[in-house]
Amino acid sequence: MVSAAPRFDILGIGNAIVDVVAAVPDSFVSKHDMRKGGMALIDTATADMLYADMPAGTESSGGSAANTCAVAAMLGARVAYLGQVADDQLGQVFRHDIAAVGVHFPTPSLTEGDPTARCLIMVTPDGQRTMNTYLGACVTFGEAQLDEVAIADASVTYLEGYLFDPPEAQAAFRRAATVAHEAGRLVSLSLSDAFCVGRHRAAFRDLVAGHIDILFANETEITALYETNTWEEAAELARGDVALAALTRGADGSTVLRGAETVVIAPEPAEVIDTTGAGDAYAAGFLAAYTAGKSLAQCGKLASVCAAEVIGQYGARPRADLSKALAKV
Amino acid sequence: MVSAAPRFDILGIGNAIVDVVAAVPDSFVSKHDMRKGGMALIDTATADMLYADMPAGTESSGGSAANTCAVAAMLGARVAYLGQVADDQLGQVFRHDIAAVGVHFPTPSLTEGDPTARCLIMVTPDGQRTMNTYLGACVTFGEAQLDEVAIADASVTYLEGYLFDPPEAQAAFRRAATVAHEAGRLVSLSLSDAFCVGRHRAAFRDLVAGHIDILFANETEITALYETNTWEEAAELARGDVALAALTRGADGSTVLRGAETVVIAPEPAEVIDTTGAGDAYAAGFLAAYTAGKSLAQCGKLASVCAAEVIGQYGARPRADLSKALAKV
Repeated sequence: MVSAAPRFDILGIGNAIVDVVAAVPDSFVSKHDMRKGGMALIDTATADMLYADMPAGTESSGGSAANTCAVAAMLGARVAYLGQVADDQLGQVFRHDIAAVGVHFPTPSLTEGDPTARCLIMVTPDGQRTMNTYLGACVTFGEAQLDEVAIADASVTYLEGYLFDPPEAQAAFRRAATVAHEAGRLVSLSLSDAFCVGRHRAAFRDLVAGHIDILFANETEITALYETNTWEEAAELARGDVALAALTRGADGSTVLRGAETVVIAPEPAEVIDTTGAGDAYAAGFLAAYTAGKSLAQCGKLASVCAAEVIGQYGARPRADLSKALAKV
Repeated sequence: MVSAAPRFDILGIGNAIVDVVAAVPDSFVSKHDMRKGGMALIDTATADMLYADMPAGTESSGGSAANTCAVAAMLGARVAYLGQVADDQLGQVFRHDIAAVGVHFPTPSLTEGDPTARCLIMVTPDGQRTMNTYLGACVTFGEAQLDEVAIADASVTYLEGYLFDPPEAQAAFRRAATVAHEAGRLVSLSLSDAFCVGRHRAAFRDLVAGHIDILFANETEITALYETNTWEEAAELARGDVALAALTRGADGSTVLRGAETVVIAPEPAEVIDTTGAGDAYAAGFLAAYTAGKSLAQCGKLASVCAAEVIGQYGARPRADLSKALAKV
């Protein structure tokens, strides 16, 4: 099937979350048996208990794919997002913030059931963030929440691995990939979290091998997916599975693999203030450049510029003006 | 009447507000006919319109007297706060944040009617903040919301001038002052805003002359109250009206007047990042030191230290550890 020119460059699907960020001493993290630097899913009772014990915080819109969509829109890409919020104040905040950067967000709010998701983020004195996510309304995301017209109208549909826990979300991912491919579009996945990959390795392997064109993963995620001892082995397996893999390596930059091609991307210099959202921003820069027809080296360059911007500030959504960044790579 | 030792050092009464802060260009402020650097009260329709047009923001607990209470508690003072939120997510955020710094907050949430107040704050490139406050649930604060047992149990009841617009709040202020004085306690007022003073000058003058022991005001507020051309004239009128006046003068520091005594307080050095909350923090430092039995010079010193701390960061509630600051002055 030959499709018309797409209305969107990128359509993201992910957990629609409001972040609550507070500074805590190391003892807070150990007292609550958290894995420092990690992300844990928590239920309502735990969320209430943790929030009651947490210092005063700051609320802002988050969510991994939503961050990617926000940054891509700031770069000038035409972006849509699907994710489930409730019809409550935090849902209004999420909807306002993503609309304010120009992202089309057609998913209707839930009018009953669980409230909008929140992520309780503890920042320890070493700058690390330990995340505890109460998924709330997010867990109801399934095939019914897919806007298939919008998906068919996006050059790349970008899936957030974090969403993958409920079986309904896995089914939604497979359906979204089918809709996109039938319209002649591409499908991208971010693995998001090595522990999430570990919980659903077989399903992730099937998804990657069967449905994904562009894969994003960091070192722990890609080795968790392929259960290899080295990054090099995992990277070669990824090369065989997907048309394009953009593999981040922290302070060592990233490597992009496409068929026999291997492009090593140097990291952009950045003073490390807060690494939250670096991967989200990397994917945003890469896909914004890719859908604008840039070379792999340019895609990697813009990805690194965006990651460095986010690393050099507090929070996952850049405050700097990125509107000229795409034209500069 | 001789009272037992008070349970609280400070009890604040004010507008319980969640701040929504976003960076905007100067054109946003002029387009919406805002008075740059000022505070305007807005209705529901205007709040909805402005929020829809506003960039993505960050939410955190605010409110002038609530900020003062939070800083005083961080200094180690025993603090209570009265203010009206609704039983909604922003109300929960406000309640969480003020409890998290150890402030007793007994006012029950409204279960019907208007939502929790919010202040839409536009930060222009010059660092100035232009505030638009939707008062929501706050405007229902009246005598019925006074916790008279708590007021009688606080060394100083601190009233926020911003609350003064509705007649019910004015009546509540007079009643709170009567309860405090009957218990042998002190009553303090912050004038908050020259425009609010201008709207209610006669009522403010009656309140100050008849009920206030400790007055806080900046230069524009004190000259607005007494309609004088010079700060010096206004200061002398204040000296005659109240037992103690702590008058801030921006970068020139502050002057404390008590009877024939005049204590000039030098400002603490600070890189000016964001002046929001400087006056709130000044009052917190002053009252925390005053209720701890410190001299006027020490009260002024701690007030200036707290103001400088807040001026040197974004936001009205300090991130630095202030628990040792009182012992150091």
